[in-house]
Amino acid sequence: MAHKYVYLFNEGNAGMRNLLGGKGANLAEMTSLGLPVPQGFTVSTEACTAYYHDGKMINDEITGQIENALKEIEIICGKKFGDEENPFLVSVRSGSRVSMPGMMDTILNLGLNDKTVKGLAKLTQNERFAYDSYRRFIMMFSDVVMEIPRAKFERLLDMLKEEKGVEFDTDLDADDMKNAVALFKNLYYEEKGTFFPQNPREQLMESIKAVFRSWDNSRAIYYRRMNDIPGDWGTAVNVQSMVFGNMGETSGTGVAFTRDPSTGENKLYGEYLINAQGEDVVAGTRTPEHIETLKDIMPEVYDEFAQIAKTLEKHYRDMQDMEYTIERGKLYMLQTRNGKRTAAAALKIAVDLVNEGMITKEEAIMKVEPRQLDALLHPQFDPKALKNAKPIAKGLAASPGAACGQIYFTSADSTVAAKAGQTVVMVRAETSPEDIEGMNHARGILTSRGGMTSHAAVVARGMGTCCVAGCSEIRIDEANKVMYVGDRQFAEGDFLSIDGSTGNVYGESIPTVDADVTGDFATIMGWADSVRRLKVRTNADTPHDAEVALRFGAEGIGLTRTEHMFFAADRIAAMREMILADTESQRRIALNKILPMQKEDFKGIYRVMGELPVTIRYLDPPLHEFLPSKNMTAEIQAIAKELDTTPDAVVAKIDALHEFNPMMGHRGCRLSVTYSEIAEMQTRAVIEAAIEVTQETGHVIHPEIMIPLVGAVKELAYVRSVVDETAQKVMKERQVKLNYWVGTMIEIPRAALTADKIATEAQFFSFGTNDLTQMTYGFSRDDAAKFLDSYYEKKIFDFDPFAHLDKDGVGKLIEMSVKLGRQTRPEIKLGICGEHGGDQSSVIFCHDVGLDYVSCSPFRVPIARLAAAHAAIMEKRAKN
Amino acid sequence: MAHKYVYLFNEGNAGMRNLLGGKGANLAEMTSLGLPVPQGFTVSTEACTAYYHDGKMINDEITGQIENALKEIEIICGKKFGDEENPFLVSVRSGSRVSMPGMMDTILNLGLNDKTVKGLAKLTQNERFAYDSYRRFIMMFSDVVMEIPRAKFERLLDMLKEEKGVEFDTDLDADDMKNAVALFKNLYYEEKGTFFPQNPREQLMESIKAVFRSWDNSRAIYYRRMNDIPGDWGTAVNVQSMVFGNMGETSGTGVAFTRDPSTGENKLYGEYLINAQGEDVVAGTRTPEHIETLKDIMPEVYDEFAQIAKTLEKHYRDMQDMEYTIERGKLYMLQTRNGKRTAAAALKIAVDLVNEGMITKEEAIMKVEPRQLDALLHPQFDPKALKNAKPIAKGLAASPGAACGQIYFTSADSTVAAKAGQTVVMVRAETSPEDIEGMNHARGILTSRGGMTSHAAVVARGMGTCCVAGCSEIRIDEANKVMYVGDRQFAEGDFLSIDGSTGNVYGESIPTVDADVTGDFATIMGWADSVRRLKVRTNADTPHDAEVALRFGAEGIGLTRTEHMFFAADRIAAMREMILADTESQRRIALNKILPMQKEDFKGIYRVMGELPVTIRYLDPPLHEFLPSKNMTAEIQAIAKELDTTPDAVVAKIDALHEFNPMMGHRGCRLSVTYSEIAEMQTRAVIEAAIEVTQETGHVIHPEIMIPLVGAVKELAYVRSVVDETAQKVMKERQVKLNYWVGTMIEIPRAALTADKIATEAQFFSFGTNDLTQMTYGFSRDDAAKFLDSYYEKKIFDFDPFAHLDKDGVGKLIEMSVKLGRQTRPEIKLGICGEHGGDQSSVIFCHDVGLDYVSCSPFRVPIARLAAAHAAIMEKRAKN
Repeated sequence: MAHKYVYLFNEGNAGMRNLLGGKGANLAEMTSLGLPVPQGFTVSTEACTAYYHDGKMINDEITGQIENALKEIEIICGKKFGDEENPFLVSVRSGSRVSMPGMMDTILNLGLNDKTVKGLAKLTQNERFAYDSYRRFIMMFSDVVMEIPRAKFERLLDMLKEEKGVEFDTDLDADDMKNAVALFKNLYYEEKGTFFPQNPREQLMESIKAVFRSWDNSRAIYYRRMNDIPGDWGTAVNVQSMVFGNMGETSGTGVAFTRDPSTGENKLYGEYLINAQGEDVVAGTRTPEHIETLKDIMPEVYDEFAQIAKTLEKHYRDMQDMEYTIERGKLYMLQTRNGKRTAAAALKIAVDLVNEGMITKEEAIMKVEPRQLDALLHPQFDPKALKNAKPIAKGLAASPGAACGQIYFTSADSTVAAKAGQTVVMVRAETSPEDIEGMNHARGILTSRGGMTSHAAVVARGMGTCCVAGCSEIRIDEANKVMYVGDRQFAEGDFLSIDGSTGNVYGESIPTVDADVTGDFATIMGWADSVRRLKVRTNADTPHDAEVALRFGAEGIGLTRTEHMFFAADRIAAMREMILADTESQRRIALNKILPMQKEDFKGIYRVMGELPVTIRYLDPPLHEFLPSKNMTAEIQAIAKELDTTPDAVVAKIDALHEFNPMMGHRGCRLSVTYSEIAEMQTRAVIEAAIEVTQETGHVIHPEIMIPLVGAVKELAYVRSVVDETAQKVMKERQVKLNYWVGTMIEIPRAALTADKIATEAQFFSFGTNDLTQMTYGFSRDDAAKFLDSYYEKKIFDFDPFAHLDKDGVGKLIEMSVKLGRQTRPEIKLGICGEHGGDQSSVIFCHDVGLDYVSCSPFRVPIARLAAAHAAIMEKRAKN
Repeated sequence: MAHKYVYLFNEGNAGMRNLLGGKGANLAEMTSLGLPVPQGFTVSTEACTAYYHDGKMINDEITGQIENALKEIEIICGKKFGDEENPFLVSVRSGSRVSMPGMMDTILNLGLNDKTVKGLAKLTQNERFAYDSYRRFIMMFSDVVMEIPRAKFERLLDMLKEEKGVEFDTDLDADDMKNAVALFKNLYYEEKGTFFPQNPREQLMESIKAVFRSWDNSRAIYYRRMNDIPGDWGTAVNVQSMVFGNMGETSGTGVAFTRDPSTGENKLYGEYLINAQGEDVVAGTRTPEHIETLKDIMPEVYDEFAQIAKTLEKHYRDMQDMEYTIERGKLYMLQTRNGKRTAAAALKIAVDLVNEGMITKEEAIMKVEPRQLDALLHPQFDPKALKNAKPIAKGLAASPGAACGQIYFTSADSTVAAKAGQTVVMVRAETSPEDIEGMNHARGILTSRGGMTSHAAVVARGMGTCCVAGCSEIRIDEANKVMYVGDRQFAEGDFLSIDGSTGNVYGESIPTVDADVTGDFATIMGWADSVRRLKVRTNADTPHDAEVALRFGAEGIGLTRTEHMFFAADRIAAMREMILADTESQRRIALNKILPMQKEDFKGIYRVMGELPVTIRYLDPPLHEFLPSKNMTAEIQAIAKELDTTPDAVVAKIDALHEFNPMMGHRGCRLSVTYSEIAEMQTRAVIEAAIEVTQETGHVIHPEIMIPLVGAVKELAYVRSVVDETAQKVMKERQVKLNYWVGTMIEIPRAALTADKIATEAQFFSFGTNDLTQMTYGFSRDDAAKFLDSYYEKKIFDFDPFAHLDKDGVGKLIEMSVKLGRQTRPEIKLGICGEHGGDQSSVIFCHDVGLDYVSCSPFRVPIARLAAAHAAIMEKRAKN
């Protein structure tokens, strides 16, 4: 039997989403529920795949099936395509598995031509309606199928209205519409050199092809990439018989939700337009009415619709987003789907549906998209205050949240002001590692240069601090501490508000409100916690980060980077002294200066975390990051003076530390191998701090020491021997016993490949998926930005492997490591601390592959908790 | 039963080499053959391992076994340790599985002290001998066990001789020797603060520990690394009863080979000293006699020795290197082992032994170490001429071979001179990619800066051109085209000779002789070819390289890099025009200029290779390599002028191309994805050249197009579609059908991990193990040089993974790829084209893992052929 590519609405159901797309499956489902649905058929997603496979052609088999379906629908509807007496008209709409903005949406009134329009006029006794429908069809077809700009048609219509001196389309009469049709057809001819197609079958096939094509337009590709949708799914096409909302005052069209999509409130929410087709609602030329008013105008229609809404919500057990049309007082349902909603509404609806007995708690958990929570977790502008505010500039939305504060232009000034109690927004052309302290104290960060992977953006996201980056509309005069936007000028101490979720910059003070982690949020998270297996830790370098993460439910620290601490103004000098040292004993002198500070860092974190595990990663970056670049003469002179050496000596050291590929250079555990005294100092700080905080608080502190960038077991064995010897020495000095662990990051492919060996020396593995992704793909994140756009454009990559874990490659290494590691050491603790630890799909992968925990930035902890619950539920469902 | 750590000589045999070390196993074997061997025992390599395991202690169990063995030997020899009448004396010598220079060698006369020396004097009636032996023992023990510099003892002896006005040690009498003993003991006390140990058991245990310690001294570690010897093998210790070559005119000691180790000639070869101990032979203070003369002095001893030599050679079926001592006219054998030999001798001996019916052809193949061939394959200085030459400077032996020619200081000058027929040695401070053309024309390259991985060194090795790099003793004035060495001055056109195998530079003309690939060499290679399965191809970028490789037996080209061609003076301008282009059409204009040149390159190579496969890799390096660096103002101005643009525009492009980690940046197939017109041009060149050479020569040319740096199958699919479309177009234009293949390098870990998918698009895989090693280890070769020394020192790495393939990590990826690739496409062709393709152990791995071919630089082709034969024979033996 031939393969079936085309399904009548009465042949499908809601379970056939992959084949029929969401829209088609739901139309079929509504049909089977006996709801008033205009009949039609769906051309399947497989037909779309076949279209691309056949070199963008619809083959004869599929064409035949479309024609057959059309005939059957003609019979059902009692009309015929192209019939001059009683013409059959259809709409053509795309519909993929998941709703996808950016694809072609709708063509209405297809089937009209110079002859059938007359039949329609006669049949409906409404010439104006018929020609209005025809001119709309010409415009839509020309726009979406033939790519003639819609604006050109609208200009013609405006001209007509102007000529006649009226304001609204509804003021145009039948003759005006006939004129419009003539003008539109003429425009079509001028643009394409051919006449507007009169054959309804040709109109149909061209429209179907246009839907298929639109699957691959750049907006759709971009959307898929952002949302992790595979490029090979394809879209279905729905061909549905037309009903008309523009047949007069007893006709209309609208959209509605079964609950309020912004707040989740349980009441019918929506709007409609009388005497209109769908596009009028979208176009916004007339203001639609609230759905409540329909109760007064057409009470039976309203009651029927409210009843259908209830039925659908109950049937789908979720809030529904519906489209409907009223044709001469009769209600038709054109679409239903689970409605999109804000994060707040998602939480409320999920909790309410459980309380209403409609769904289980597990189903409620699954109804909240983890990634959606992000919007709730950061401080936001007070919505009332924001209403009247106007942005003065727009940059990249680099790190979410809102901040309002006084601006400062240097790290030092920001730090001083913050310590004096001011709320600070730090403004810089771009940031460097030396700005860490100021960034740490700032409530928000604004830069005029740099992209989504610039230093400011990456560090701010890690800190959970709001950041607008690369805002080229502002000009910063750092020397004079002034910022210009257009002709406005902002001095040090002036107030500014920035929104890292939108990129907006406001030249005024807008109050912010903190994330609310109570109420429905807390309820859902509690349910999530009760079902998930995966633990969630946080990446935190400071006591403040740790506090925020605890509030968001972190169960430990999976990554404390020790290097950020070294950039602080009061210790970078000692760090540089260490780097510039020529001998081990000189290095030790400098390290001894760092030791007490480093110890205080750890004590602060231990105090916040109590008995929760704290994983501390040893010094990781190449040492040159702590020195200025060669051309920063003033900086170099200052360093030379401070360290009592010559600028030439500093330059010579900078030269000696130069690397061709710093990411693949002298860093990570390689530093501890060459300068084991660094690992000694860090171990002393970790152990002494743990002993002291244990004595101070009575909490049993259990540090986990993490050695980065290990590629061979002997590297780890060597550094571990340094750690163990030092730890034993400290414990002997203090006459105290303390449990600590030594583990490693798995971030070098070779470590994953030899994980059985590595596990002989490691008590835990933490997957550093940022570096592991870079090494596995063989491109650095910074450099890849230059060519990845081409990769998305040419559909070589479906998504950014730094945002979502690559399961085929990087994931395979993780799976190998898990297997090999447990083979050697069954009780080994396995976690992940790359940025993927806070990404929904990656967390699910981590659950599936059997990790013990994920660790992510504080603001992503709730996302990870919820995603982990999703993973556990999906696993359970797959088993049943 | 307790584990056995100590074996008497009559308990072992030659098969126990791993346990007893080479020396111990052979002493046991000679014992079992009934040869005259002074008896003793061997402390096994396992005892050495235990020593390190126990924290550098010899545990009680082993100490007990040593004491028991000593007692048994005392009984056999009828003497007692420390007996003041008839003292038992022993030698202590190290002996690991393979002979290893750099480890402690020998302590003789152990057991002597102030009392036993008197007994010895009395017993032998030779006071001089006894005290001579004692002072020797004090010196050796102090030197190798206690690390008191030997020179200090020799100075004392010299003083004595001076006092007495004599020249040789033999001129010193018994009293002088007594004085020497006293002075030596005093020196020992001054150096160590304790008296020279008088207890023979203590002397013995300290000596054994010293041997164990010497396993891990830096020279031994270095040697192991150079020779691929695992650090955990450990060494055995041989304790053997002393016989004395210094008991007068009927005593002596010597070494001999059963055949000439330099030429392989089949005659007894060696030397001896009368009235001497082994160290005198080594010290070189007296000139030893040729062994033939022994025939006259002690004919019976000579005959017995000659007979034993024959026996041993027959027994071991290989040329033997023997040590012997004559004590009062009686011959003792102290050691035998397979003798080290030059490459030429190895070939001759192997062939002769086959002809003599002593071994099979396969055994002959196994007797020649593949890596040893290297010395034979490059031009060498005429030995006679070299004899009188004195080097004027010494640099790094960066690329083997010898060259003599006239010096030129720029790439252009070198090219012109070479084209005019001169033999050129190119002299530069350091080279850059722009010097490629000159380097290509030069017979040798000399640089004053840069290490073993500098541009000059790497490129020269690739080309097989002799190179001395980093010769800091020379000073080059490039502006004035003069080179200074001390107070000598060399101008353009002066003659210089350099030896890339030794690093020597000669200020004169020394004739060279070419490699001889006939005779025994050809015989062995023929036998090797008949047994190997693995094919051997070459990496060749030019027709010249291809010719050399063919002469050395290459069976195709596994890698033609196309980028080197672009650096030639006549085309780099077009390349830069392409890079500076802002639009695709501008790029195409520039590419059209490159096309005919690129086509000629390929035609030249096809003509040489005939119907053998030629693999052409598409453009690989990041584009910035074709531009000068930002501070090269003059260069930039020249480019701006040539390309009719501004220096600012050139600088802007250099900035735009800047990458943080160029190795992980925009290169390889990523270039073809963003600028598919480059792949189009290269395809056109490959296909048109193949068609034209096929028409010209009648050979069926079969190009293999290789896409570099693929990490995801869709990358390859995209580039392949460009290649296929272009190839089809060219074939249609030319109305010719041509077979070509498209494959990829596997050099990114992700490619290996997803090889099953990659294979859907690839007709062959070629493992690029240079990059694959870098990515798998996460360090770049250039940058790793800075810390790898620490890694060797701390025994974290046993060998350089860029020299020998890392089987655990990189090898695992290769194994996975082979399995996954064949799973998808059983007929897929698998090869390797990294530098490992010419490395003995790596070639063996490639055979074992089932590759079809290896590809290496031309001069390494014979090494790979022989190594492949070794692999096949070892596999066969393992099966039997």
